[in-house]
Amino acid sequence: MLEEPKSSTPLNKFGEFGLIKHLTETIELVNPESIKGIGDDAAILRFDKDNDILMTSDMLVEGVHFDISYTPLKHLGYKAAVVNFSDIYAMMGAPKQMTLSMAVSSKYTVEALEEIYEGLLTACKVYGVDLVGGDTTSALYGLVLSITVTGTVEKDKAVKRDTAQKGDLLVVSGDLGGAYMGLQLLEREKLVFKEHPTTQPDLEGHDYILERQLKPEARKDIVEKLKEYEITPTSMIDVSDGLSSEIMHICKSSKLGCKLYEDKIPIDPTTFNMAREFELDPTTCALNGGEDYELLFTIKQDDFEKIKNDIDLSVIGYMAEEVEGTVLIDKSGGVHPLVAQGWKVFDSEM
Amino acid sequence: MLEEPKSSTPLNKFGEFGLIKHLTETIELVNPESIKGIGDDAAILRFDKDNDILMTSDMLVEGVHFDISYTPLKHLGYKAAVVNFSDIYAMMGAPKQMTLSMAVSSKYTVEALEEIYEGLLTACKVYGVDLVGGDTTSALYGLVLSITVTGTVEKDKAVKRDTAQKGDLLVVSGDLGGAYMGLQLLEREKLVFKEHPTTQPDLEGHDYILERQLKPEARKDIVEKLKEYEITPTSMIDVSDGLSSEIMHICKSSKLGCKLYEDKIPIDPTTFNMAREFELDPTTCALNGGEDYELLFTIKQDDFEKIKNDIDLSVIGYMAEEVEGTVLIDKSGGVHPLVAQGWKVFDSEM
Repeated sequence: MLEEPKSSTPLNKFGEFGLIKHLTETIELVNPESIKGIGDDAAILRFDKDNDILMTSDMLVEGVHFDISYTPLKHLGYKAAVVNFSDIYAMMGAPKQMTLSMAVSSKYTVEALEEIYEGLLTACKVYGVDLVGGDTTSALYGLVLSITVTGTVEKDKAVKRDTAQKGDLLVVSGDLGGAYMGLQLLEREKLVFKEHPTTQPDLEGHDYILERQLKPEARKDIVEKLKEYEITPTSMIDVSDGLSSEIMHICKSSKLGCKLYEDKIPIDPTTFNMAREFELDPTTCALNGGEDYELLFTIKQDDFEKIKNDIDLSVIGYMAEEVEGTVLIDKSGGVHPLVAQGWKVFDSEM
Repeated sequence: MLEEPKSSTPLNKFGEFGLIKHLTETIELVNPESIKGIGDDAAILRFDKDNDILMTSDMLVEGVHFDISYTPLKHLGYKAAVVNFSDIYAMMGAPKQMTLSMAVSSKYTVEALEEIYEGLLTACKVYGVDLVGGDTTSALYGLVLSITVTGTVEKDKAVKRDTAQKGDLLVVSGDLGGAYMGLQLLEREKLVFKEHPTTQPDLEGHDYILERQLKPEARKDIVEKLKEYEITPTSMIDVSDGLSSEIMHICKSSKLGCKLYEDKIPIDPTTFNMAREFELDPTTCALNGGEDYELLFTIKQDDFEKIKNDIDLSVIGYMAEEVEGTVLIDKSGGVHPLVAQGWKVFDSEM
């Protein structure tokens, strides 16, 4: 009964971020209340003289973003909330309200939903956010969680991706690659369990990387710390797709290049050792692993003194001219162009 | 690897709206910026001295809310946007911004997504809304659209469900049951087409009910008209689940009863005739069909003079004491308790 489309282009043709760009590039904002639309961690809205409102949405799909066979539902609810809070913090804002829409198939029970809500509401409590609405509906398959979070930031103080300056220092919080190694470990133990259902999964001693994968935190503390230090980052993004990908977002939107130093990338020893056990290069895991939900930002060189002794912040490089490229300088001084390789094909946040 | 839940209650145990109530009844709002949470068409947020912000979310799931075999994708995009705008108008607000999250399986092409976006952006243009963000991800099955819309309303002027008063007149815009009859027609022709693939679907002359189903509009015009009439409804809701269900929401939240008169329910002749063709009772279709996206509201009796000649507004009953019940008075004067029978089991908007 429907007309056949004239041509048929598969979705993966445009690559990870190209599809959204293709679909949304003609959009022009019409309301004076819409300050900044698609293209950052959150949109910026202005209804008020003193504050701007931030708005961000994320969707988690069973079988794509999570595997229910090893993801405790409480943790799933917690993580679904936190990844959205992270987008608000990545604009130097404070998350305030959330709506949750959920499509759920009949394989889920009321008790399962209670666990998801428990995790979600725990995250709301920890981060001071109100669940104010949403939609719950049945689905034919699996589980889809869609969350929108609004937050506040002082007027004109939202930190965007496109405002880094040449010479600025590139800084990342915490350490990287842990969430990815947690995922590798869970996937391995799942396979073992499938083949030998009587064996117990070997997860002992790996709490750190498992927690990085299953129950990440958003870096509210870093936003507060930067305010204490009286540092306004010149640009900021959260590390959801992997360090490489996020650096390239900042470079591309700010029309700059970047020099990243391999030996400066913070990697926890447990992440490092697990990567070795899997015969993976720890640096590659940190660059492309994703889901660390750390904050990546640029600061003026003058601000270096304020953070140099902070063990939770690592200066990992500096912003350069666009023509110098976005490059990794390895431990032997070799220069390699960075490649944005999100770990999920075709998954793009607007 | 996961602990088994202690008990297992199927999702349909709680009925249509019971599940959300069960999951969210312990929520207490903590931010002063959160004025009204779960329980109306939209949440009410306050960041500003002069205006309140409305926020609403809706999710459309393939196979549950739409059938891709007879739903043009442009119309799907249009409808997905409009049903959210309708929630904002149902608070007497104006929609301003939207985020769209979409999970899409590989059976969809880039051209298919272009059509969805075209419909969505057309709706945005018609209603003056900016698409400011979202998330696009792959899915293993089908298509899920999740939309959140923010809007504005003068401070303290959002019209809620729980503020109707005894004696208020119950008014509905437009006519009811058309979207449901459109759906019945499409389902019938789909069956015919399955059995006889060479026949052409018999949709001619049924434009009105087909458009009611496939490309509904939100009643922005009614909100504007009420302002012109200088009428502030005492309560309001949009008709998404069916007239019965919406009346019961107003009654329950306002702690009132209601007398609804069958002969006053507005039904278009094409809807009426199609119901007869299907051997369905037209009143039942209007009461329980849903998806009409008309506005249902209560007004003070003093305001009756202002609307009595408006052919787009029908007074269909009045609010009574809670003990009098929520009843339909049929054409012969018989009294029947209303039953909230949303047409989709387990689909509840918060």
